[in-house]
Amino acid sequence: MTTSNQPHSYGAMSRTELEALEITLVQKYDEIAAAKLALDLTRGKPSSEQLNLSNELDGILKGQYILQDGTDVRNYGGLLGIPEARALGASILETNADEILVGGNASLTLMHQYLAFMQPIWKQECPEGVKFICPVPGYDRHFTLCEHFNIEMIPVSFNGQDPDLDQIERLVQQDPSIKGIWCVPKYSNPTGTTYSETAVKRFSMLPKISGDNFRIMWDNAYAVHHLSDAPDQLANLMALARHHDTNDSMVLFGSTSKVTFAGAGISFLGTSREKLGEFEQHLSETMIGFDKVNQLRHVLFLKDMSGIARHMARHAALLKPRFALTEKILSKYLAGKRIGEWSRPNGGYFVSFDAIPGQAKEIITLAANVGVRLTPAGATFPYGLDPEDRNIRLAPTFPALDSLQQALEVFVVCVQLASVRHYLKS
Amino acid sequence: MTTSNQPHSYGAMSRTELEALEITLVQKYDEIAAAKLALDLTRGKPSSEQLNLSNELDGILKGQYILQDGTDVRNYGGLLGIPEARALGASILETNADEILVGGNASLTLMHQYLAFMQPIWKQECPEGVKFICPVPGYDRHFTLCEHFNIEMIPVSFNGQDPDLDQIERLVQQDPSIKGIWCVPKYSNPTGTTYSETAVKRFSMLPKISGDNFRIMWDNAYAVHHLSDAPDQLANLMALARHHDTNDSMVLFGSTSKVTFAGAGISFLGTSREKLGEFEQHLSETMIGFDKVNQLRHVLFLKDMSGIARHMARHAALLKPRFALTEKILSKYLAGKRIGEWSRPNGGYFVSFDAIPGQAKEIITLAANVGVRLTPAGATFPYGLDPEDRNIRLAPTFPALDSLQQALEVFVVCVQLASVRHYLKS
Repeated sequence: MTTSNQPHSYGAMSRTELEALEITLVQKYDEIAAAKLALDLTRGKPSSEQLNLSNELDGILKGQYILQDGTDVRNYGGLLGIPEARALGASILETNADEILVGGNASLTLMHQYLAFMQPIWKQECPEGVKFICPVPGYDRHFTLCEHFNIEMIPVSFNGQDPDLDQIERLVQQDPSIKGIWCVPKYSNPTGTTYSETAVKRFSMLPKISGDNFRIMWDNAYAVHHLSDAPDQLANLMALARHHDTNDSMVLFGSTSKVTFAGAGISFLGTSREKLGEFEQHLSETMIGFDKVNQLRHVLFLKDMSGIARHMARHAALLKPRFALTEKILSKYLAGKRIGEWSRPNGGYFVSFDAIPGQAKEIITLAANVGVRLTPAGATFPYGLDPEDRNIRLAPTFPALDSLQQALEVFVVCVQLASVRHYLKS
Repeated sequence: MTTSNQPHSYGAMSRTELEALEITLVQKYDEIAAAKLALDLTRGKPSSEQLNLSNELDGILKGQYILQDGTDVRNYGGLLGIPEARALGASILETNADEILVGGNASLTLMHQYLAFMQPIWKQECPEGVKFICPVPGYDRHFTLCEHFNIEMIPVSFNGQDPDLDQIERLVQQDPSIKGIWCVPKYSNPTGTTYSETAVKRFSMLPKISGDNFRIMWDNAYAVHHLSDAPDQLANLMALARHHDTNDSMVLFGSTSKVTFAGAGISFLGTSREKLGEFEQHLSETMIGFDKVNQLRHVLFLKDMSGIARHMARHAALLKPRFALTEKILSKYLAGKRIGEWSRPNGGYFVSFDAIPGQAKEIITLAANVGVRLTPAGATFPYGLDPEDRNIRLAPTFPALDSLQQALEVFVVCVQLASVRHYLKS
């Protein structure tokens, strides 16, 4: 057994060292079990303190419900959203206001509605079935939508900060039944990376090698969600697409779910004016319109991009200590041991952890058995299947700092225990 | 020409009388045209005064966002809605709170989602196509939903206050591809009638002669929307259905669209607990949850059935003069002439006008040409086809009283003009 305080790689340990370590870790694990914890690191939810930042939303209208153009936001109508909110969405998604539809409290609903709109078109072209490319690890809700519509998912790995565009271009060229791709281009869920300018350029030209009805589902959920004073820069997909005349294939999504109230914000969809008109027509058959009163609340509260930046800085002030604590604990217990790698994102809501291949499920089960809930293994992959069984999505935003610390201290014990047993077996 | 002030039936007039009348009416019509009106009787929209009744909604939370059960309404989750709002919906739809889902700002969205949920089940049973029975005249948005899902519509006429249940039962027995029926059972859109207790009983037993997957879409949009001190009573479909073990087939809908804000209320769906669970599962694939903050606002504002009754009395005070004016003008100019019949509803949002067969389109065109917009002819029938071309839906709620009077005075001139020409041609 080493007497040094320097951690060293589990792979370099002797069997005796590993066995001794296992005993120590089991002891720690049993102590944790005795504490009967009930902690949760599963969902990218804002904390109560973050939600408090937007309490002013309620009561902000002060009886003023009439817009400059005369619209009464309380009444029916106006499927595309109020002009003021469309302008706000255009600023966030960096496109033109007349290319924006403002939705209800979740962009996921808009994604679902957009896929429902495209379904008959795709089915006619590909009666045998439609496929989507899914960069992995990715967002489970995107994958659930694909399953819901019987869209076959083709996982494509990341290559550094970007999805593997060589592979994506090859796939799209080979298989005309591939009708779309999911992207979370900024502070990606869960990897935290932001696509490079080169990647965005290649995405803007992707429809040139696919059919007309190929869609890039550009879920810019974390567009303004910085955790660093030197935030990542994302190239403007829509501007590039306009240049290449591929903007009909671009569908931008965003929301204020992690700006104001997670469950009571407003959402945005951006695409070319022509396609927006077709989508509006589709929606008009199925609904009357979204909540314009809440749209006006958001306009008055957030105002413009400077207002949003000031507001997001308050979020960052609450989030930075949580991400710093996560980094601190993971580093303290796992650095140098070669039993896991993790992301250090400049924004977004997640830390992506890669364990030794084959250990994710085991780690998550170990944690669950002592009262710490983690996102299910495989959740970040289509069909819940992580081929290497190694990715774990950590969501440090919701718990209070002391709970977060407890949960992470359990997590690192579970990672170590699973890993030491892995080496003992091999 | 008669010198009496008593109007008499156009049918009994001589050609000379009719020709003289036409000249007078054309003169009036030309005077109207010169006034360059821009009036609108198309949509069942609440007026600004009605919307003002609920302005208190904004600001009602006063920073309190946590429910008794600890739920933070601002955050994600809770697809079925907050317990307090489910209880409110249960009171309105007269069922149990655990059989209620609370939706967003429109029950139409819930109807669309429910049909989308049933589609694969129906398609598997009837690959050749699914049919729905549509009592006529009815609500155009129901018909649009059917068209959206390629559901063939079979119109069935009303027989007094009820849809013709003999015909409905016969159709359902004969044709297993009939999978549902639309009903607006109280203050029906547009006829204003409320189904009799006998009819509701027969509806509650309808699934006994249909397949398991038959659905009664019971759109109780005007449940609490009385215009009379002796409001209509509607028998409790769900209670009867429970008794007959047919409650899986019942789907109740309601909303606060015409209680609070038309475009920013909350909506309700009620069905058996088992079916509600299946529907929730379906929804969970496509969305995160509805706006719980707005649900809480509504609970605090409306409180309970007494609160709703007090609030609806304020609406009635604003609506009664509009309906009374409508009745007054239609009576004054059309009574006894046998050129039209119309409803005198005890609640709801519409007056249903039946012209001489073949004249609805002509009347609507005449009115449009002098600046008075009416709901398009046929809108109250599937595929926009009124086989007799006679039904016109008048929506008197939105315009101010003086505009309403103007619009109705134009309407009666158009009715008379179209009718006199009809008799001159025949």
